[in-house]
Amino acid sequence: MASPYSGKFATSSMILPINERNHPMTDAAKLVELHRNGILESTHRGHVVVCDATGVIAEWGNASQVIFPRSACKMLQALPLVESGAANKYGLEINQLALSCASHQGAHMHSDLAGEWLKGIGLGEPDLRCGSQTPSDHEARAMLRENYQSPCQLHNNCSGKHSGFLTLNKHIGGNAEYIELDHPVQKAVKAAFEEMTGATALGYGIDGCSAPNFTCEVGHLARAMAKMAAPEGLGETRSNAAKRLVQAMMAYPLLVAGEGRACSALMAAANGRAAVKTGAEGVFCGIIPERGIGIALKIEDGNSRASEMVIAALLVRLGVVNATDPRVSQYLHRPDINRRGIKAAEFSVREEVLAEGKPL
Amino acid sequence: MASPYSGKFATSSMILPINERNHPMTDAAKLVELHRNGILESTHRGHVVVCDATGVIAEWGNASQVIFPRSACKMLQALPLVESGAANKYGLEINQLALSCASHQGAHMHSDLAGEWLKGIGLGEPDLRCGSQTPSDHEARAMLRENYQSPCQLHNNCSGKHSGFLTLNKHIGGNAEYIELDHPVQKAVKAAFEEMTGATALGYGIDGCSAPNFTCEVGHLARAMAKMAAPEGLGETRSNAAKRLVQAMMAYPLLVAGEGRACSALMAAANGRAAVKTGAEGVFCGIIPERGIGIALKIEDGNSRASEMVIAALLVRLGVVNATDPRVSQYLHRPDINRRGIKAAEFSVREEVLAEGKPL
Repeated sequence: MASPYSGKFATSSMILPINERNHPMTDAAKLVELHRNGILESTHRGHVVVCDATGVIAEWGNASQVIFPRSACKMLQALPLVESGAANKYGLEINQLALSCASHQGAHMHSDLAGEWLKGIGLGEPDLRCGSQTPSDHEARAMLRENYQSPCQLHNNCSGKHSGFLTLNKHIGGNAEYIELDHPVQKAVKAAFEEMTGATALGYGIDGCSAPNFTCEVGHLARAMAKMAAPEGLGETRSNAAKRLVQAMMAYPLLVAGEGRACSALMAAANGRAAVKTGAEGVFCGIIPERGIGIALKIEDGNSRASEMVIAALLVRLGVVNATDPRVSQYLHRPDINRRGIKAAEFSVREEVLAEGKPL
Repeated sequence: MASPYSGKFATSSMILPINERNHPMTDAAKLVELHRNGILESTHRGHVVVCDATGVIAEWGNASQVIFPRSACKMLQALPLVESGAANKYGLEINQLALSCASHQGAHMHSDLAGEWLKGIGLGEPDLRCGSQTPSDHEARAMLRENYQSPCQLHNNCSGKHSGFLTLNKHIGGNAEYIELDHPVQKAVKAAFEEMTGATALGYGIDGCSAPNFTCEVGHLARAMAKMAAPEGLGETRSNAAKRLVQAMMAYPLLVAGEGRACSALMAAANGRAAVKTGAEGVFCGIIPERGIGIALKIEDGNSRASEMVIAALLVRLGVVNATDPRVSQYLHRPDINRRGIKAAEFSVREEVLAEGKPL
């Protein structure tokens, strides 16, 4: 079997030792712990790869673990929208490109932008195939209740990605069922995904928004993110598309997620030095353009309380955010404050990952 | 070091083989998986012990893992309330005893009962030390909003346990700060906990409701539950107290948790043949009086979506609930239905634990 890190990527000798020496090399590594009064209460394990074009910089767990990237790969799924010329043809602005990579909260800024976007290409909410979702944004929920309105597909956290799919579909003239696996839109998405991960997608599943989600290894996903970070050499079309999408995410952190969300807080703190994206079931990706670095991580048990801590710790170690920035520190050491205001427990990233901010 | 299963309990030869043979004996076992389109997406690991007075019946993971039982040991914390004579002196009914073991949703049936209870012993909401909590019950939350009222301590999911503490405290004449570690109420709770687990509590933490929560090994917690199931031989006072509390839980499933909650659904399905109790961070305990069996389990990552599945699977294997009962099957094979009604993924207990309902 060929090495999953062929080409410019690391050979096994370039992969850092795994921190959990008691486990087989293929097992998940312990990454995040909850301590109550100094006593270990819960542990989250997972797989993490940090790499650039020359190879793996750091690794915990198993880089070959097959995962569903879920929404953490939305910027890859948006590549055909830009590369096809559809984004230019329909005059998409940078904020719309940010929304095409978003898992948003269904706040007015998100659902309104998606609605205007669809109107702008002569389509509407009924053309979406993502399904209706109650917005997680408080104000949007309160407004719906106040007006006795139902949530609609524009509130779906993936309505931006689907607006991008519809724009691409309008451009290429495909049929209305753009989320089907054999539809030209999803074929284009799969091709871009495989080219960026550098591996054939051996499996797929249906995502929460009904679009296909292709599997890949954690290391392959990190490699795709490294390519997003330094797309030079991928050809002018892809390079430009990758740069525009990453720039869009970094320029509009709140459009990519929303108030109080890790993606938005960490990208705001990084101030144009990193793009990050969460995915359901404990996935997180990171893109550091100034160093050509990509990050992919998966928490084995799927919990985002752990994935958010690990991505924050890695951004600190990579020097693109400050550990004392409240937008960052809230994810690094999260106290569990009980109902009388007592700090009863604390979540923290394990020393092996945090290494007290030692630069990576 | 003495065996943690001394006395009547199992020697190591009585402990069943651990299902994860690739791991050291001390590691957590893989218990619950999420599959998307047949492909593994997430895994929950943990520690499970099923035992009776003669020893361990089944075990996955590490029986010696030290855990915080959290709310899963509330029936142990309620023992002094009954044993001291306080429950009889203040004429507590069986529904109040159920509430003393509850992690409830703050529905009217819960908060009203706690309020009346405190009034009945000449105390009130301000005497509680559990802190205010927004009720998880929808109707109670809507009513508070409608009337511009704030949630109070009666809505705290532990207000029944604390009403029990206050009743015991009134009986023994302790000072108002009944949740302090060195208060006679908590000393009595600790003594009962240690006697039932058969081990010294080497650590403690502060729980969400501000009461101390003592650590123990998973196997010790299972042993305590086996004693609750078959308390004969523990002396008349303790035996009667244990029986009354277990009977109370089984008689009032909805008071122990609430509508749509695993504890209530599973106890209703068991119809008097089992008492079960969840605890924060993925703990679950079970008591099967007809067989003198106790169960304790801890999901390593703290997720209740996994602990609920494992306890349901064990109750099926122990023959006290039916796998086809909708109140049970909803926890055994939980589909992940997406926003267009498509079954996109499914959680299930691993074959090793479920073993297709093979009797234990």
